[in-house]
Amino acid sequence: MSQGINRRILLASRPVGAPQASDFAMDEAPIAAPGEDEVLLRTIYLSLDPYMRGRMNATKSYAPSVEIGEVMVGGAVSEVMTSNAGGYRSGDIVFGYTGWQDHPVAPAEGLRKLDPARAPMSTALGVLGMPGMTAYTGLLNIGKPREGETVAVAAASGAVGSIVGQIARIKGCRAVGIAGTAEKCDYLTAELGFDAALNHRADGFAEALAEACPDGIDVYFENVGGHVFQAILPLLNEFARIPVCGLIAHYNATEPPPGPDHLPVLMGHVLRRRFTVRGFIVWDFADQEHEFLDAVGGWIDDGRIKYREDVVDGLENAPGALIGLLEGKNFGKLVVRVGPEPTA
Amino acid sequence: MSQGINRRILLASRPVGAPQASDFAMDEAPIAAPGEDEVLLRTIYLSLDPYMRGRMNATKSYAPSVEIGEVMVGGAVSEVMTSNAGGYRSGDIVFGYTGWQDHPVAPAEGLRKLDPARAPMSTALGVLGMPGMTAYTGLLNIGKPREGETVAVAAASGAVGSIVGQIARIKGCRAVGIAGTAEKCDYLTAELGFDAALNHRADGFAEALAEACPDGIDVYFENVGGHVFQAILPLLNEFARIPVCGLIAHYNATEPPPGPDHLPVLMGHVLRRRFTVRGFIVWDFADQEHEFLDAVGGWIDDGRIKYREDVVDGLENAPGALIGLLEGKNFGKLVVRVGPEPTA
Repeated sequence: MSQGINRRILLASRPVGAPQASDFAMDEAPIAAPGEDEVLLRTIYLSLDPYMRGRMNATKSYAPSVEIGEVMVGGAVSEVMTSNAGGYRSGDIVFGYTGWQDHPVAPAEGLRKLDPARAPMSTALGVLGMPGMTAYTGLLNIGKPREGETVAVAAASGAVGSIVGQIARIKGCRAVGIAGTAEKCDYLTAELGFDAALNHRADGFAEALAEACPDGIDVYFENVGGHVFQAILPLLNEFARIPVCGLIAHYNATEPPPGPDHLPVLMGHVLRRRFTVRGFIVWDFADQEHEFLDAVGGWIDDGRIKYREDVVDGLENAPGALIGLLEGKNFGKLVVRVGPEPTA
Repeated sequence: MSQGINRRILLASRPVGAPQASDFAMDEAPIAAPGEDEVLLRTIYLSLDPYMRGRMNATKSYAPSVEIGEVMVGGAVSEVMTSNAGGYRSGDIVFGYTGWQDHPVAPAEGLRKLDPARAPMSTALGVLGMPGMTAYTGLLNIGKPREGETVAVAAASGAVGSIVGQIARIKGCRAVGIAGTAEKCDYLTAELGFDAALNHRADGFAEALAEACPDGIDVYFENVGGHVFQAILPLLNEFARIPVCGLIAHYNATEPPPGPDHLPVLMGHVLRRRFTVRGFIVWDFADQEHEFLDAVGGWIDDGRIKYREDVVDGLENAPGALIGLLEGKNFGKLVVRVGPEPTA
């Protein structure tokens, strides 16, 4: 194997509040040689997702924290350069949680082979990957939308929200999206077919949301929290379902917000209007991956699901892009192009 | 029908905070004559339950408010005095939501005939009535306790909590009860077979609760709210289920408690530990009433479920007893003996 350099982005320090560029460090190490049942990869697309903010904390969660000095975690699409693993050979395109680096060595066990002829390879990070499956499994298993109901989702132009709304439409529901700019809202209604879209930064947002939901809200897919949830709460119908997969508005918080304490108010609504609030992560529904790929793959083929990617070039720009993601600056599924797609 | 007086307790004013005696008014009206398909009743036992506090507010809920000047709502066990309804005759013992009065006239449609030979008639207000069915349906449908899990419940010596804990034991779970006095806690462990009982008013309550739940908590049956819920929260295991049927700690609140705002903290736990929080009222499971009566009736016969009643004499004492209930002063299912049981 030719010698070379593996550029890696490490966690340099745990952020207090919003991450800073100085919380990351670029590192150069010799490219490692793959051991038995391992492959050497060349990263093509790195996924950036809100959950990464949580991994930068020491707080116990459903997955271990990244330690200081470790490579930042993340899913990526890569090309196999050298394989010491049965079933993989040079030139294969794979998905794996191989992190923020351009030449990782990874055990074959954690990889999944992609068929670039079936769909653009970057979709394995978005609409046909973890975000799409989060939308599909959370909406259908927990949201349980029924024809004629109203489904609301925030961060609606993002990787998860955009799929939630489009599946809601396919299921015969009214889809109401919430996003952070007028341009994103236009995209939701004009391109994705949402029935209504609201800018949560606009004056009169709560009133506009109420007008957009004349029959209330039956399913609120929660991936944001904050003032959006406060505006949603009074509109929820009896027996509303609230899948909770993200709370991006709070990820940078260093302490609970000031009072009053809204917890008893929420629980009072949960009780009187008999809400179901249920947290999940996509891997809770791991056994539905094939069903998800078949369903959403088919809807993409039929033109019933569209998606948008926000591509940032260069591994070195990943920290800035993640910082922007947490501020809502991306428009569509955020990916970093770490290296070129192989020429066919 | 002989003339006579029907004493009624009316809502005199909407309480601000804790109800006062002056929020109720005793009224005397001539006993009415039953119309077609109606019966004239003599109230024997009146049930007092926490939900009544909510009905005293103007706030929209799952059931209409009691209007000012109306008879307070409530379930009661009564004897039929005069019947103009097929299927009912003088001397029958019935249950119905006939309110705080001693000689109601009621449509037969809303009544249910009791068999006093099967169980003491007052149990139709408690263990074999709405509170028992709340415990049974909420625990089994939402809590879904599995053998070996830990089930925690507050107000555990009360009408609902005592049944939750005993059914949890029957299902092979560790039952941990929380109550407001040492005497109630002794009763839970010594009489009802709870594995542990904690006094939430004692110093070091949160630490003692943690010690009593060495494997965490899988099901928390929420009927209290407040500081008990705050102590429960860190102990909940991944995929914990939280049926919410009451929040008595907040019923007298006039405004949200001061900050910090714990709502984002709760939602963060819901997300990361994938809780299911679901509100319900017993009538959401109305079709399970026969199953409930068979199951719990059988467990009482077998001595596997015990119950305790706190009987207050005299309709005129109902307001004071409800005020006390909201402060946790009762010990067991609170009922008012409005009139004597018929002599056999």
